[in-house]
Amino acid sequence: MRVLVTGASGFVGRHCLKFLKKIGAEIHAVARHPGSPAEGIRWHFNDLLEPIGLNFLEKIKPSHLLHLAWIARPRIFWTSPENLTWVASSLRLLKTFAEAGGHRAVLVGSCTEYDWNFGNYLEESTPLQPNTLYGTCKNAYRAMAEAYAKQVGISLAWARLFFLYGPGEHPERFVASVICSLLDGRKAPCSAGTQQRDFLYVEDTAEALVKLLVADQKGAFNICSGQALSIKSIAQAIAELMGQPDFINLGALPTPPHEPPIIVGNPHRMHTELLWSPRFDLRRGLENTIAWWREKKHGE
Amino acid sequence: MRVLVTGASGFVGRHCLKFLKKIGAEIHAVARHPGSPAEGIRWHFNDLLEPIGLNFLEKIKPSHLLHLAWIARPRIFWTSPENLTWVASSLRLLKTFAEAGGHRAVLVGSCTEYDWNFGNYLEESTPLQPNTLYGTCKNAYRAMAEAYAKQVGISLAWARLFFLYGPGEHPERFVASVICSLLDGRKAPCSAGTQQRDFLYVEDTAEALVKLLVADQKGAFNICSGQALSIKSIAQAIAELMGQPDFINLGALPTPPHEPPIIVGNPHRMHTELLWSPRFDLRRGLENTIAWWREKKHGE
Repeated sequence: MRVLVTGASGFVGRHCLKFLKKIGAEIHAVARHPGSPAEGIRWHFNDLLEPIGLNFLEKIKPSHLLHLAWIARPRIFWTSPENLTWVASSLRLLKTFAEAGGHRAVLVGSCTEYDWNFGNYLEESTPLQPNTLYGTCKNAYRAMAEAYAKQVGISLAWARLFFLYGPGEHPERFVASVICSLLDGRKAPCSAGTQQRDFLYVEDTAEALVKLLVADQKGAFNICSGQALSIKSIAQAIAELMGQPDFINLGALPTPPHEPPIIVGNPHRMHTELLWSPRFDLRRGLENTIAWWREKKHGE
Repeated sequence: MRVLVTGASGFVGRHCLKFLKKIGAEIHAVARHPGSPAEGIRWHFNDLLEPIGLNFLEKIKPSHLLHLAWIARPRIFWTSPENLTWVASSLRLLKTFAEAGGHRAVLVGSCTEYDWNFGNYLEESTPLQPNTLYGTCKNAYRAMAEAYAKQVGISLAWARLFFLYGPGEHPERFVASVICSLLDGRKAPCSAGTQQRDFLYVEDTAEALVKLLVADQKGAFNICSGQALSIKSIAQAIAELMGQPDFINLGALPTPPHEPPIIVGNPHRMHTELLWSPRFDLRRGLENTIAWWREKKHGE
């Protein structure tokens, strides 16, 4: 199999490359800027937002597409007009992939597509009612991609990611920011932290995505742990693992308005149809993440 | 008001120009190819599918946008991958319009966005469940455009067209094809024609669109007659008006599979909020259309 991975130098992308190498795929990785090219991977430094950025697909003729690239800058991504540009580019990508003979695609969405009044989300039964530009664009892209794929005979799965953490995460995102604060000797400012979220370690996420890519199952798949953990309990777990149990400053940040009390996915489809389940529990995931940040920040 | 009209040389677009002139708008009409430029209208011959095709907006700074352009070739449009390209271009158009200071937009969708199992369609309560690539793309574009408009403060209405007829229609579409057959002295081949549809005369459609454009009401509006007429009865009305009552060959064409028995819109929002109602009954609409085709075909 010849796999085209977009967003390959991103948080999730880098971890996917490891699993793709493990299964012996010919890997074509797309990224906007040269990062740290790894062995055995063919890098294409192209800007997917530019129409000419896709011309190389005709030569490569990938059989599989794992499309991770999208605007992801913390906070900004919820409302950025760049979401519209990503929809346009992602439609062009799927069309070019199909026209170049591709036959299996995994595209990446998120739990923000669901109606967040429901709390617990199942792919086939929870209503889709995104309330952000980001979620609306992801959901709209999914609908069009599924209709197009069905028509041209591409096998297509849509992976809905929930909350992530792990090595390589943007330092402004939740788990990374808590770890970085503590490593810098600062107390980590948190909201009251009673809201419960479904967090999955990034390597588990990457393994799930690659498992889905080599399969032929179609439709939406929640990629999640199925466990609801309070933000507070995660912050405290980090602080305890780092030996600084009093360094979490709960209530220092306001809880964002309209923040749903619980967001948890049901990973039943991934469990039963893909025989996937997470390998990392929270403790091991956090330990790895803390070790990675120590290494990065202090060279310890 | 300075109005940008896309698809201005198309079937609906040409009729909209008349109503825009009537209200004294400064009209900037966009079309892919020079047609027959009318007086008092500034034409821009640009291809909206090309990114550079929008650069002129920055100079014009339209206050209003009426976006009619989309792939419309009979039969082809249902499944054409060009629908994806139109979504991409239409997102870019709305973004460029907003960035150039525009504040009111009317975008055009269709009854194909609704779940066709329902028969009778009301904007706020009938589920949206398009089953074609065309309908899926229109509905996806609407969702993204509404989310984006809300965020950047543009007033946006979404016009859902139903079935149309009138002068200037593509000769392969239903009403035009029946008239053309009879004018050529051939019997018009029809399906059994028992399915009922909501047909609106194109001038009524154009007037409704312009009325919506100058208003500030937001959300989806059915642009329709509210009357269900069988295909058979329309064909027979044409034949009688043309003095050839026996020239309709019912049952000569197969009824397409999965053809819903009835598709009729509820124009309640347009009636009550916009105080719009159709001016042309079927007889007058058909008479005008027949006269137009006679003129065009035979110079009578």
